[in-house]
Parts: sequence; C-alpha cells; structure tokens
Amino acid sequence: MTRKSPLAPECFPDLPDVAGVRLSVGATGIRYQGRDDLLLAVLAPGTSVAGLFTRSSMPSAPVVWCRSVFAKAGPGATARALVVNAGNANAFTGEAGFRAAEAVARCAANLAGCDVNEVFLASTGVIGEPPRFDPIIEHLPELFDRLESGGWQAATKAIHTTDTFPKGACRNASIDGHPVVIAGIAKGSGMIHPNMATTLAFIFTDAAIPSPVLRTLLREANEASFHSITVDGDTSTSDTVLAFATGRQDRHRPIDDAADPRLDDFRGALNEVMTDIARQIVRDGEGASKFITVIVTGAQSDRAAKTVAFAIANSPLVKTAIAGEDPNWGRIVMAVGKAGEQASPDRLTIRIGGQAVTAAGCIRADYDEAVAAKHLKGAEIDLGVDLGEGEGQARVWTCDFTHDYVAINADYRS
Amino acid sequence: MTRKSPLAPECFPDLPDVAGVRLSVGATGIRYQGRDDLLLAVLAPGTSVAGLFTRSSMPSAPVVWCRSVFAKAGPGATARALVVNAGNANAFTGEAGFRAAEAVARCAANLAGCDVNEVFLASTGVIGEPPRFDPIIEHLPELFDRLESGGWQAATKAIHTTDTFPKGACRNASIDGHPVVIAGIAKGSGMIHPNMATTLAFIFTDAAIPSPVLRTLLREANEASFHSITVDGDTSTSDTVLAFATGRQDRHRPIDDAADPRLDDFRGALNEVMTDIARQIVRDGEGASKFITVIVTGAQSDRAAKTVAFAIANSPLVKTAIAGEDPNWGRIVMAVGKAGEQASPDRLTIRIGGQAVTAAGCIRADYDEAVAAKHLKGAEIDLGVDLGEGEGQARVWTCDFTHDYVAINADYRS
Repeated sequence: MTRKSPLAPECFPDLPDVAGVRLSVGATGIRYQGRDDLLLAVLAPGTSVAGLFTRSSMPSAPVVWCRSVFAKAGPGATARALVVNAGNANAFTGEAGFRAAEAVARCAANLAGCDVNEVFLASTGVIGEPPRFDPIIEHLPELFDRLESGGWQAATKAIHTTDTFPKGACRNASIDGHPVVIAGIAKGSGMIHPNMATTLAFIFTDAAIPSPVLRTLLREANEASFHSITVDGDTSTSDTVLAFATGRQDRHRPIDDAADPRLDDFRGALNEVMTDIARQIVRDGEGASKFITVIVTGAQSDRAAKTVAFAIANSPLVKTAIAGEDPNWGRIVMAVGKAGEQASPDRLTIRIGGQAVTAAGCIRADYDEAVAAKHLKGAEIDLGVDLGEGEGQARVWTCDFTHDYVAINADYRS
Repeated sequence: MTRKSPLAPECFPDLPDVAGVRLSVGATGIRYQGRDDLLLAVLAPGTSVAGLFTRSSMPSAPVVWCRSVFAKAGPGATARALVVNAGNANAFTGEAGFRAAEAVARCAANLAGCDVNEVFLASTGVIGEPPRFDPIIEHLPELFDRLESGGWQAATKAIHTTDTFPKGACRNASIDGHPVVIAGIAKGSGMIHPNMATTLAFIFTDAAIPSPVLRTLLREANEASFHSITVDGDTSTSDTVLAFATGRQDRHRPIDDAADPRLDDFRGALNEVMTDIARQIVRDGEGASKFITVIVTGAQSDRAAKTVAFAIANSPLVKTAIAGEDPNWGRIVMAVGKAGEQASPDRLTIRIGGQAVTAAGCIRADYDEAVAAKHLKGAEIDLGVDLGEGEGQARVWTCDFTHDYVAINADYRS
C-alpha cells in the first residue's frame, strides 16, 4: 500500500503560505499507527467559504454537518476552522455519528474562539465504523497550539487513506493588478467518480471574494476538474470540496459578481489548481499504471459528450485492455455503443495516441496497430472519440484497471 | 482461459431433442485452431421466431441483419436457419460486415431451401476485425450434410469465446395437457450487462406458438433473466436472444394471446430455462470465484429496485471486497447511495447471508461480523438490501471481481 504510484509527480510542489491560513497536524491513533491522521486549519476572521458535496443519498455526518452550516449561514457563510480526519469516514453511523461530528465542531469552535457554525468538517476512511472521536477532541488543543503558516505536505499526508503520494497545487493570479495566491490540497485514490468526483479537496486563497461569488467560481472549476475524473465509477459518501478565501490580500476593489472580468485571471488560476489536483488523484488511482485522457468531441451536447467519455473511462474492459497494453479499440466502440447517447458507426472516429483508427464504420486501411501498441506501452494514454453528431465535447481522465486495484481493494479493510 | 470456472455446474444437462430442430457444428479456423467455431441450426418449415437484441448504438452486422428480417416479416416472422460463429463479432465492420452477413444468410438459405429472410445470424468474438467469412460459406454445406437432432453440448461449445463451460437448460411443460419441451443454450462470460444482458442465447421449443405471442413471452422472461445479470457492467455490440417455436408439437389448440391461461405452465418453464442459463453466464463470469445474488426490496418501484441492485452488482469496490471475502458492508452503503434512487440511511437495512447488518442508520449492536465473514468464504453469496421506501423489488445476479478478471481481459485479444 505504501509503494508510490508510478504515475506520481516527481515531488510535492512548493506551496506558498496563504495569508490567513494556519495549519497543524497530529496523530490520534484512531485507526492508523505511526502516522498523522488529523488536520486542523484555522482561518482568519471573516474568511468566506464555499462547498460542494457528494450527491450520495448516504452522505457522511461531516457532509451533513457542512451542508447544515451552509443552510444556516446563507450567502454570508464564513469559516474559521476546518477539521479533517482519516481512518474513519463517520458515514452511516447514525445519531452517534452526528453527535460525534458536532462534538468535534464544538471543540474546534472553542479553540478558535468562533461560532460553531464557522467550523467545517470532513472525514475519510472506512464507512460504517462507529465514530469513536474522543481522541480527536483530546488532540485538537495540542494541534491548536502548534498552528503555523505552511506545512502543506504534512497537512496532505495527514488526510491520506490509500493514497500513495501527497497531492497539492498552487497558482498565482492577480485581481486589479494585486497579486493573490491559490493553494489546494486533496486526497483520494479510489471510490472516485462524479458526482462529486474527489474524495476530499481543500482550496485556500488570500483573495477577498464573497462566499456567493466563490461558490459560483468553485462550481465552474469543479465541472472540468473533479467532475471530470474517475477511477472506478464508485462515488464516496464523503466527497467534499471546500474553498476558503481569507481576504487577507484585499487591496483589490470589492467584487460582488462572479462575471466581473477582473476575476478572469483568478478564475483561470482556480481552474488550473483544481484540474491539477484532480488529475493527481487519478494518477494515484488504486493500482494505476497508466494515466488516460479521454476526449470526446462531436457529440450532440457537452453533457452527451461527458456521458460517452465516462462510459469509456469507466469500462472495465477498456481499462483492463489498456492495462494489458492491447490496442483493443473494439472495446471503445462497445463503450460508445452502450452509453445511450446519439452515435452511429458511420460517423464515429476513434483515435489512439492521436492516430485515427476508424472511418466510415470500420477500421481504416492505413491504421497501423504497431503505432497504437507503442503508444499504449507509455504511461500517458490519449483516447479520442469524435461522434460526428454535433459540437458537444468533454475531456475526462481515468486510469487503467490492474491486478493491483484488485489486490488493494480485496484487502483494504482487513 | 481453459480452466473451468469454479462456479460451473457439475455437468452439462441432458438436453432432449426438440422436434423440428436439427443442429450441426464445424471448424472454420477463422480465429481458433483445433475447435469448432460454427453452429448451424435448421428449423422445420413454419417455425415461428422472436428476438431481442442489444441496445448498443453500435450493433453488429448480424444484429442489424436480424432486426431487418423482423422488420420485413412483421408479425408473421418465420425461421428456417440459424448460423452462429465465434471468433469474429462482425461488429464495427462497415459495409463489408453487412455484405459478409448477407452472404452467409444467402448461403444458408440456399442450403435450407428457404427465403433469405428466414435465416437468422449471430456472431461473437473480437469487435472490429474485418469479417473474412469465406470459410463460413465454404463450411456450411458440410455442416448441412451432417445435421442431426440433439448435439446440444457441441452446439454450445462451438459458440464459445472466453467461456469455460457450456451452458444449457431445459424444462418440460404442457399446453392443453399436451407435453412440450423447451431447450436453451447460451454463451457469454464477459461484457455482460443489460441492455441486453447476454452475449448470445437461443431457445428452442416444439410448441406451436405464433411469433407475436412468442415475442411477448420472451420479453417477459428476459426481464428477470438476461436483463437481471451483470459481470462487468459492459454491454456487447452483439447481444442476441432468439426463441424458435417449431410447432411440431401442435396437438394443443391454437393460441393467439400471450395472456391465454393455457400458457401459464409454458411461461413458467420458459422463465426457468432463461433464468437458468442466464445464471450460468454469471457463473462463468470472467475470473469469477463467487456467485452473488443481490435482492433489493422496499424501493419506490421495481425499476428503482433494479437500479439500486445493479449499482451494487456493478460496483468494483463491492465486487473486490467480496473477492477478498471481506464483509465490507460500507461499500454496499456507498453503492446504494450513488444509485440516485430514493433512499435514506435511517430506513436502510443491509443483509449479508441473511444476517441484518444495519438498523436506524448505523450498524446493529447484534451484528456478528464473524458470521458474515464465514458466509463470504463460501461460493454463493447473498446480499439483501431493503430501502424501506415502498414495494418495489428486484433480484440480480453478479460475480466477484478478481485478479483473473484482469488477467483474462488485459490479454484476451493477443
């Protein structure tokens, strides 16, 4: 489990401090021994916040907590603390789970000197384990005493479950000519599929962006990032993306509209950060040996394109063929066919590594399988499908399906 | 590939002759060496016929052929010959594929002395391979000369691809007090998911049942059989179920309504034959080591129940947990949650091997994991989910997801 994914980036990026964000980690021993499993982030007063959550009908207690906080706060939601633990998902834990989540939030609120509704929570780990969260409450004061700016890599590692490398990204941007920074961290390697598509991701910026505007930007960026990745087609009960804007870098004039062109640079940077960390999650897909980009064009709509792209990206037969480095493009035909969207053999073009395989409903005379096979021997696989039906397009990322996926998942809990 | 599934029945059943059905097999060498890969069935004049086909938007040439025959024949469709080959799916083969299919049909029609629109076709194997079907046309006369009643097991083996055992079932029934027989054969082990849910299945009876009535009965039986199984959630381009009623056993009074109560016994027997062979397909799921029955009750509708059942049955995380004999019921919660149907933790009951795991949104105090773990050590796994939302129910069958699935599929074509 500790072997680093062969698709991991060379190193963790050098994430800068974000003014107004202080971090601390600790080890509760709830499930894991000899490693950190608890992250506390404390945010400057007035930090705005936006969140997106799993669409599972079985959401974890922390997801229910965060949603209720947003529901109570309305457009003026603010955040002062974030508590994340790994090893126990606090999902399907009934009343005890909600009480445990609330107790953790109260403890963090007391430490940070804020309202309990300014505390955000996330938990990841085994579903259905009783949440014995006393160790979290015991350790939080100690974490509070050790808060510091930075420490991103340790923060990321503290929220790992089956992750094999820490995931982070940052970008600089400017608003009104004033520099701001965006840093993001995430965990996730299995149970990854929209809706939502991460396990957990947290974005921090020092820009001054009101919560409703932040929410719009987050939604937009999410569609092309966490909503465009899949490892196994399974959706977690705990998926959470939270964005925090501390406003410490507030020399720019106030912004109250997500369509404000002064946000263009920020919007681009946010998209890049979220896409970067979403792709890192796929690179840490359980057992992954190939990083696969699926681009679908020519669909009747962007939505249809995404449906087809995910039909390919989630097909066990496509994913095992790629694991076997076999350019078995017939399985891509199969996946397009089963997607349920408008498609016709005559108009379908399949590309492997940029090389067109099909034309007019059958294999092209000039298709060179050796070239496709060589492409599949690499670690970065490009699959392209043009449906010839319209202008809709989508890009999703996935990984191959290997023996190691089975090994990791046949044996995760025990 | 030749190791027999550990879930295979002890032996191929003793299928009786069906009056009006003659079979023959041969080896064309198109893809496989040293084994039969071609099946010819010749049917008595006046045989009625009904068919159900893949809903893939990329149907194989034989599927397109059969559909067009039904479209031309209307309610009076009759069948005189069935030709099935293994090794080349004749799917995504463009104009050449349609010409190849038509040439095979013409050859069979000449031999059987029938109209070309009384010939039905099916092909299974690799998608997208050019259909060089001359060997089929060369061998068909020889097969025609060797037609005989019976020979079911050889017929089934001739249409195998990755199958590890032949699949067949039969039942006796009576109509108006007169005995009739139903025999069915099928192939399939991967790329199995509704819609359709088999790869290929052929049902033969000596009853005299008009094609429109046969079609209604086939549709009904299909819902609880081939539309209730999954191996990998992938849907073939070639899925075909054809039913033939030769009418050689026509002492019963004519039937012209599928609701005729004189069909009750026949209907039950047809359901049993189709469910039996559909379950055999799951038992031959690629790499399967466990046969899993998922029963969902208490859904808002039968359709909703089936959606939830398939969310569980297709979840890689559930299927790998069962392969690992780990009663990781949290993954069942996850799968229910992602299904998109009305469900609430408080009302959800999960059962493993009959033992209730959950109540009121969390684990039951009396849940005994050792009992569940013991159940998972067996080869026949029962998962039950009650949603507590209504009266809808469904039963689906699947298998676990093992190293061998990856091994078989990373390496099938080469």
